Order: sequence, then C-alpha cells, then structure tokens
Amino acid sequence: STMELTFLGTGSAYPSPSRGASCVILKMDDGSWMFDCGEGSQIQLQKSKVRAGKVNKIFISHLHGDHMFGLPGLLCTISGNNQRSEPLEIFGPVGLRRFIRTSLELSRTMLGFSYIVHEMKVLPCQIPPDVQKWKIEDSCNEQRLHPNERKGCLIEADSDNVWTLLSNDKISVKAVHLKHRIPSFGFCIQEAASPGKLDLSKLSLQGVKPGPWCKEVKEGRIVTLPDGRTIDPADVVGPPKPGRKVIIMGDTCNSSEIYTVGMDADVLVHEATLQNSLKDMALEKGHSTPGMAAEVGKDLRIRLLVLTHFSQRYMPVSDEYEEEETVSILVKEAQEIMGPNRVLAAEDFLSITIPLRP
Amino acid sequence: STMELTFLGTGSAYPSPSRGASCVILKMDDGSWMFDCGEGSQIQLQKSKVRAGKVNKIFISHLHGDHMFGLPGLLCTISGNNQRSEPLEIFGPVGLRRFIRTSLELSRTMLGFSYIVHEMKVLPCQIPPDVQKWKIEDSCNEQRLHPNERKGCLIEADSDNVWTLLSNDKISVKAVHLKHRIPSFGFCIQEAASPGKLDLSKLSLQGVKPGPWCKEVKEGRIVTLPDGRTIDPADVVGPPKPGRKVIIMGDTCNSSEIYTVGMDADVLVHEATLQNSLKDMALEKGHSTPGMAAEVGKDLRIRLLVLTHFSQRYMPVSDEYEEEETVSILVKEAQEIMGPNRVLAAEDFLSITIPLRP
Ligand SMILES: [Zn+2]
Ligand SMILES: [Zn+2]
Ligand SMILES: [Zn+2]
Ligand SMILES: [Zn+2]
Repeated sequence: STMELTFLGTGSAYPSPSRGASCVILKMDDGSWMFDCGEGSQIQLQKSKVRAGKVNKIFISHLHGDHMFGLPGLLCTISGNNQRSEPLEIFGPVGLRRFIRTSLELSRTMLGFSYIVHEMKVLPCQIPPDVQKWKIEDSCNEQRLHPNERKGCLIEADSDNVWTLLSNDKISVKAVHLKHRIPSFGFCIQEAASPGKLDLSKLSLQGVKPGPWCKEVKEGRIVTLPDGRTIDPADVVGPPKPGRKVIIMGDTCNSSEIYTVGMDADVLVHEATLQNSLKDMALEKGHSTPGMAAEVGKDLRIRLLVLTHFSQRYMPVSDEYEEEETVSILVKEAQEIMGPNRVLAAEDFLSITIPLRP
Repeated sequence: STMELTFLGTGSAYPSPSRGASCVILKMDDGSWMFDCGEGSQIQLQKSKVRAGKVNKIFISHLHGDHMFGLPGLLCTISGNNQRSEPLEIFGPVGLRRFIRTSLELSRTMLGFSYIVHEMKVLPCQIPPDVQKWKIEDSCNEQRLHPNERKGCLIEADSDNVWTLLSNDKISVKAVHLKHRIPSFGFCIQEAASPGKLDLSKLSLQGVKPGPWCKEVKEGRIVTLPDGRTIDPADVVGPPKPGRKVIIMGDTCNSSEIYTVGMDADVLVHEATLQNSLKDMALEKGHSTPGMAAEVGKDLRIRLLVLTHFSQRYMPVSDEYEEEETVSILVKEAQEIMGPNRVLAAEDFLSITIPLRP
C-alpha cells in the first residue's frame, strides 16, 4: 500500500517565488491527505503530480496564515475537479471552522461536495499570555452551517494529552501539542500492524497441508481441523509486521509532547526555520533550529528526519547559489547529531516514498 | 507624474501556473494602488518590480475568492516590508471588513501598520435573488476592531448611482455597479485637469515681461501689476489640460453603468472571460466576451482597451502554443469592433505607461 510524501511548500512566514508556504501531501491508498495549506498551495498542487480532486483529508497544524490562508481557494479548486461522494474532512485547532465558513460565505462560494471541520479543543497550557489577552471569537454559530457543511466534532485531548483524530483497523492519526506563539499541533500517522506470515514449514512439521482455514489462523484464531486437530496461530504464524509511522509537525520551539506517540517513526518532518547560531531568534519566534530538530529525531530513533519550513533566507540547493546560502548548512547541522544518512532538506515538489517495513 | 498599470494576475476563477488570479497595480506618485487581490498576488508581486511596502491603497471589485483571497497574506507581507506611517486604505463592498478582520484575528496577525476598510453599501438592485435567499452575516461588530484597524466609512451611492471613494484636487476615484453573480464594481480613476500654459507671446504682445506673479495668473487669478495694469488669465493662459482617466472593471456581464463616468478614458481594463461564440456560457456565469467589452470601449471612445480575466483555457501568446489556443483569438474579436490599434490582451507582469494627455 502507498505512503508517499510530497512537499508543495517548504518556506516559513510567507510564500515566495523560490519556496511555497507550508503544505505537504501524504498520498495514501484512499486518497491524498494534505497537511497545512499556506497561500498558493493550490498553484503548487497544479504544478505537481498530485490531483486536487484526490485530496480527501486536510490537517491544519495551527492557524498562522502561512499554514491556512490557501484553504478557501483550495476548496474552490477541489470543487472544480471533484470526484468524490464522501465529504472532505478537515481537522485543525478551534477557530478553523470559523475561518473556512466566513471565507466561503462572504465569497458566496458553493462547493460541488460537502465538507466537515473537526476542531481540536485547545488546552489552557497551549495559550500564551499575549494570546489570552487579545480576546477574539473563535467559535461559530452551530445553527447556521454553510450549505455544503456537515456538522463536525469537537475533539478533546485524552489524559495523556493526545488528540485522536482518526482511528480504524488500518490507520490512526493522533495529534500532540507543540510549543509555539499560538496553539500548534504535530500529527502522528500510524499504519496498523499487518498479520504475520503463515510458516508453511512449521505446518508441514505438524503433517498438515494448507487449506481455506489458513486465513482464519493468520487472523489470529485457533482453528479445529476436520480430523479434530487444532492449529494454534502462536505455533505457525510469525510475528505481526509493524505498520509504518510518519510524523508531520507544525511550527514548534519545543516538541517534547511528540515523545508520547512518536517513537521509532519512519519519517519525522520537523521545522528548522533558522540555523543553530540563530537559536535565540528562533526560540523568540517560536521556531526550531536543525540542532533542536535532530535531538528529537535522535531521541525518537527516527529513520529519516526531513527538515522544512525554512526561513526564506536559505535558498534551495542549486548551481545558482553558494553552498553557504542554501539549506545545506541546515542539513549539516542536523547531520552532526543524527549521522550522515538520516537527514534530508525538503524542497518544493520533493517526493519521498515510505517503504514497507521489512 | 506617473500613471502605470502592471498586471499581476490575468486569469479567471483560480490562479494557475500560467496566469495568476485577478490583481492589477496602478502606480501613482503617492504609492502603488492595487485593484483586486486574488490568492497568490503577493507571490506575483515579489516576481514583479512592484514593491510590497509601496502599496498604500487597495480596491476590491467584488468578494469572489479569485479577487480577494490573497488579501490577508498580502497584508502580512506588506507588514514585513513596511515603509509607511499613513494607514493603508482598503475599499470594497460590504462584507470585506469582516473577511479581513476574521482572517487577521484567527491567525493572530499583528501588522506593523494600521489599516482602514471603507465599505461600499450595496444597492438592492445589485443583489440577485439566489444571493438574497442565502442569508449571511456581512457586517462586523464595530465595538471591537482588530488592534491595527482604524474605523472606516460606509460609502453610499449618490443619486446617479455613483460611489465616490476618493476626491481631492489631484485625483478622484469613483465606482459604479456592474451586473455579476454577486455585487460587483468598476472603478474610474480620474486625474484632475492641470492648468493651461501661460502664453508668453501673448504676454509680450501686451508689452509685459514675465515675473513671479505669473504663477497666480496660471492658477486662474486676475493680477494687478505695480504699474496698475491688470492681467486676466482668460487672455494669456491656454485651456486647461484634461487629466488622464483609467477605468478598471470588476467581473461583469453588463457594464452599462460605467457610461455615467467613463467617457473618453485613456484606458479601459475590461474582463473578457470567454470568446464570442461562448457568449451564452459567459452570460450565465456573469461574464463578458471580447465583443461585449469592445462595444463598451467603442461607445466610451476609449483609447486603449485592455482585456483580462481570461478563462484558463486561453494560454498566453508564446511559441509553445498554436495561435488558436491563446488569447489572440479574444483580441481579434475585440479588434473587429474597436479597430486594430486599440486592443491589447493583458498578461501577467505586462506594464502599460499611461502617457500625459497632449
Ligand atoms: Zn509557519
Ligand atoms: Zn507559525
Ligand atoms: Zn473573477
Ligand atoms: Zn466574480
């Protein structure tokens, strides 16, 4: 089954001609999931191989403009390329529903599909004092939905401070909170373990030939054969194969909450806005350095750390720029902690296929 | 004095890699005025010679997404390049203030400057029945402005159905309403007439040598010289030089209201979304064909008609495409009515300097 990351925007603060604003696609079997949607993401989408009509879930890490101002326009464009009967599901912090509804209402936009916004209820500890002081209205009138809107949920954190956005027998998506200037979230996408392989040599040791009952054994049930013998999965089925795990973080200057759910992930997408020597500035703005990202990656035993959300001062690696002007210096700083083969800088339109676990 | 148009987006419905969404800059002596601001306009701005920090007035023709979804992000980017002490003034239909305030509030955006939204009160005749039926909230709580917001005006139409947005001794901006799927406006920017030239030969015919008093005569006042003679401007000053006039239209399928203010304009920027043979489809969507735009241009004796807001099916003129695939066919259709030298297709980044009148 497919799990492929495609970066549509890798710049911080605003979209520029060299880097789009934050947007990542995770291609799954059931459609394309989008993480964050800064202004211009729909243009980047058109330039990529991703098809707008295939986007069926959108996750917004936080409400800063460079992570959500592209959403109303994207919905219009999806509407023009729509192939879906199921509603589009959108997840994000409280306030997201109001932003989408206001934008669609005032522009008198009617969509060719229905949508649902599920909001994550923010914890008091996530709200910095200056944000608390500036009171705004972030909830919506629940009596008057947009004509294409279906009623969404308010998702609360559990006692471990984990928000479960989605959970079925194939996949789960959980969120944790990150320290930033406003409430921000990181997402952990966990594929379910797949059943172990039936060991045919062990079956034949017991003198049994495979039959239609094998499927039940593989699914973990003890089976009684016509001759009265019982086959216990514990004897003939190998260990379950762990599913893949992908972590996509929002803006953060402290990612410690991801430790609850992020251990041993295949990929960690983590911001690295400014280089190590500018750590004070990064912290002040609620952002991370490559060193900070790599410490998290190392602690979690991540296979591949992908840095993104670069200050527009760092250019993409190309012949046009000296190496010191590019994100190369950020990658090097992370490699000092994680080792040389486990760190990559995201670029707009870079795709990474996440291989099945061995 | 400068009057220069620069097109930053010339596509209809949504921004694409080949055409940005609607956005035009009119460079004036006091700064850059922006007309409409579709998603991605700030990226186009960065690719152009226009400097974000110089944008000091913004006019929004109507609230469709392809004309305003770029506004919140643009304000953030202007903030990062700010050189102004005067507030940024934004003009548009009722509802615009709410869109801007909601976007800036929920994203917790603080700007490095202050802004004012002046709203045009919509006439009942501008509101199609389906828009009337779908009730939304388009006004704001006037007690709680955004921290950077200053209180704006509600501008009403006069008895000729003209909205006066701006009027001083140098320039005026008036708006008229256009027929579209939602309330839409066209803008007429009229430079004041400049005083006529002092005719030195006529002065010397009267046996008078020029002196510091000439300035007063040029400004239209009768002057008494030390020797008792009077100089009457009517005798020695030529006729005033008419100011330039530029019309920038919003989306429209009936532009007849522009006849009130638009006669003899230097430039008319008019949409031509679809070719003449698709007129029915254009009308149904509230849009114009090149033929419709050119009839307006001809009636108003416009010097230069600039077509824009092209359906993304029409490609820019280039070696890559056959002529029939490009906007050439639209230009030809307008030229059949206006003549060969008076019609141009806008392209992203095209600039047109509007020469002083002779
Ligand atoms: Zn950001
Ligand atoms: Zn942020
Ligand atoms: Zn339009
Ligand atoms: Zn429109």
